[in-house]
Amino acid sequence: MIKINQNYLKLRGSYLFSNIAKKVSAFTEAHPEANIIRLGIGDVTRPLTPSIIKAIHDATDEMASEQTFKGYAPDLGYSFLRETIAKNDYEARGCDIAADEIFVSDGAKCDSGNIQEIFSEDSKIAVCDPVYPVYVDTNVMAGRTGVFDEKTEQWSDVIYMPCTEATGFAPELPEKTPDIIYICSPNNPTGSAMKKADLQKWVDYANEKKAVIIFDAAYEAYISEDDVPHSIYECKGARTCAIEIRSFSKNAGFTGVRLGFTVIPKDLKDADGNSLHALWARRHGTKYNGAPYIIQKAGEAVYSEQGKAEIRGLVSYYMENAKMILDGLKEAGFSVSGGVNAPYIWLKTPDNMTSWEFFDYLLEKVNIVGTPGSGFGPSGEGYFRLTAFGSHENTKAAVERIKGLK
Amino acid sequence: MIKINQNYLKLRGSYLFSNIAKKVSAFTEAHPEANIIRLGIGDVTRPLTPSIIKAIHDATDEMASEQTFKGYAPDLGYSFLRETIAKNDYEARGCDIAADEIFVSDGAKCDSGNIQEIFSEDSKIAVCDPVYPVYVDTNVMAGRTGVFDEKTEQWSDVIYMPCTEATGFAPELPEKTPDIIYICSPNNPTGSAMKKADLQKWVDYANEKKAVIIFDAAYEAYISEDDVPHSIYECKGARTCAIEIRSFSKNAGFTGVRLGFTVIPKDLKDADGNSLHALWARRHGTKYNGAPYIIQKAGEAVYSEQGKAEIRGLVSYYMENAKMILDGLKEAGFSVSGGVNAPYIWLKTPDNMTSWEFFDYLLEKVNIVGTPGSGFGPSGEGYFRLTAFGSHENTKAAVERIKGLK
Repeated sequence: MIKINQNYLKLRGSYLFSNIAKKVSAFTEAHPEANIIRLGIGDVTRPLTPSIIKAIHDATDEMASEQTFKGYAPDLGYSFLRETIAKNDYEARGCDIAADEIFVSDGAKCDSGNIQEIFSEDSKIAVCDPVYPVYVDTNVMAGRTGVFDEKTEQWSDVIYMPCTEATGFAPELPEKTPDIIYICSPNNPTGSAMKKADLQKWVDYANEKKAVIIFDAAYEAYISEDDVPHSIYECKGARTCAIEIRSFSKNAGFTGVRLGFTVIPKDLKDADGNSLHALWARRHGTKYNGAPYIIQKAGEAVYSEQGKAEIRGLVSYYMENAKMILDGLKEAGFSVSGGVNAPYIWLKTPDNMTSWEFFDYLLEKVNIVGTPGSGFGPSGEGYFRLTAFGSHENTKAAVERIKGLK
Repeated sequence: MIKINQNYLKLRGSYLFSNIAKKVSAFTEAHPEANIIRLGIGDVTRPLTPSIIKAIHDATDEMASEQTFKGYAPDLGYSFLRETIAKNDYEARGCDIAADEIFVSDGAKCDSGNIQEIFSEDSKIAVCDPVYPVYVDTNVMAGRTGVFDEKTEQWSDVIYMPCTEATGFAPELPEKTPDIIYICSPNNPTGSAMKKADLQKWVDYANEKKAVIIFDAAYEAYISEDDVPHSIYECKGARTCAIEIRSFSKNAGFTGVRLGFTVIPKDLKDADGNSLHALWARRHGTKYNGAPYIIQKAGEAVYSEQGKAEIRGLVSYYMENAKMILDGLKEAGFSVSGGVNAPYIWLKTPDNMTSWEFFDYLLEKVNIVGTPGSGFGPSGEGYFRLTAFGSHENTKAAVERIKGLK
């Protein structure tokens, strides 16, 4: 008899961005003349840069010849890419991470969704609130979150760490002790980033409690302040308590190219000495078949001298948008944060509107699509996310339209 | 406290092909002069064909321009690819499958490993024995297989369906009733394929028992006989009991390109009316971020007129190898099967050698790498798999070497 995973039925509505897409599509149908500006989903808009395009063309030509054709990739990624990552993202920042502690994948969403599989079903998770919905949703699917309370909009077995104006948009050490702590810094959606000293406190806490931190650093390329760490391994002791997830989506514009990686140091073990590195390697080997060769070559090109310069250009482009939104909204009297170490601007909805009310308001009044803060967790209610991933022109127009509202 | 998924510790040794790689690597180190011929892992060796190379180049150029750049792909795949698949793989064979019942992914290994997630933990699985190890291993990881018996080499909660000489290498309806039935046809590793009338029996059985069939058709392009179905949806009633998994790896040589798809008809539901299609859509939306645009364009090119002709050429090339191996081994007195509707040749080890003994024997005596049948399940013991994915030259040389053994 077909017996389904009942945990799936507990999931709340459909995925945030699917809901937004449906609302926008309904609005467009009703108002085909509307010139909608999308500052909602965190998708990039600038094309791939020349050195990446060249790397893909070259690798594609290799695939056309019997002598240079590549079949299955090595389970955990090609050495050329893992070595390059180890050198540029870790050695260059004084982090002790070896190439064989890096697992290449098709993106940070998959990794951050799949990583919970290597932990026991009764592990207790802690999440920042608000945060990227994938952490909680994938734990719901695995039956780890208990019962949903419609009033508080919280799961009974999840430890929520509010990140609001009151906490300076940073998580505070929780009262209950978690087994798995998800930290995303620079944070999606608030755009806040943890200082090194603050992150060090979390590493110390995790080591003391023998917990694991899953550190999502998908937005590290947007860090502009010196005291904000790019990797959790800049903190002392992180090798025994932290997994780090990285993405090529937001720095190099790979949202439609698909490449990411996860770092699991070999020192990271449970109380019985079982290596999390070995478990994840086993998962990769059994359920995954490697990122495409041509795309791993594109990833390598991101670290070439020319590639690095191009990526800096991309990030600067989006960060100019961030500044435009941040300054414009402040000028218009909104209460805003983020946008300095991240491509996200987080604003308080005016006039006590709920997040979805403000979504409808912006869409209807000025045809701008943003993301309701409540979609990222209960403490996101009353907030709203705008992203800096549009074009200069659209971003400027959007800011003018919003200013006109006031 | 870090608490791991204890089911991972139950997994047997490491993954079959990792073991083979280690043995070959040790042999090569000891005998650097040896000219090893690899007929082991099912990896293709012919380069990508011209129409596919062109599609990747063209799509890459689109990614270089702001006007044609593509970010995140639609959750379930681009319409252009899903429509093309629906038309060519299903409509053309009289199967009633709509484009929106097709989920594009990065390959059949991921899909066949992940699909078990949408079922309850206490679902009972049935597998052909021997078979592709991913089905059982991923169910071990999910805690669905019970205890491993070292003597029988079987899991207590798995229903094994022996496919040996005695059963004509086909599964027979099991005595115990399964909830999930994995069928791979043409079969990896035996190379046998089910006739339509035989598969119809399974569809009828699954509908009667309200079970689900997970039909892995990764090798359908190699079918040469008319009465062997290319899709399970050629059977009456399959829409209410079958999921089909397909791959671009073995027809178009995409092992290093990564593309596949899974079909879940909307009529496939549990007793409470929950749609498996909706569950899988939710999984895709939450844990996956789409196959790369340039690779979905490559997939589309597989179905162009030129692409189809090129793919026929690739398949013919490998099937000539299959015939060479089949005929040569028969001539040499081996007991062989497969190789007619599949790129795999399945042989009985001589002189009552175990599968791993024959592996070592072939590697040491004639420097040929094959795959031990026992790696695919207990009933594979005493058998051995050779693949047709080498070059003509290597395959011919391998056959000559094996003939020389006798």
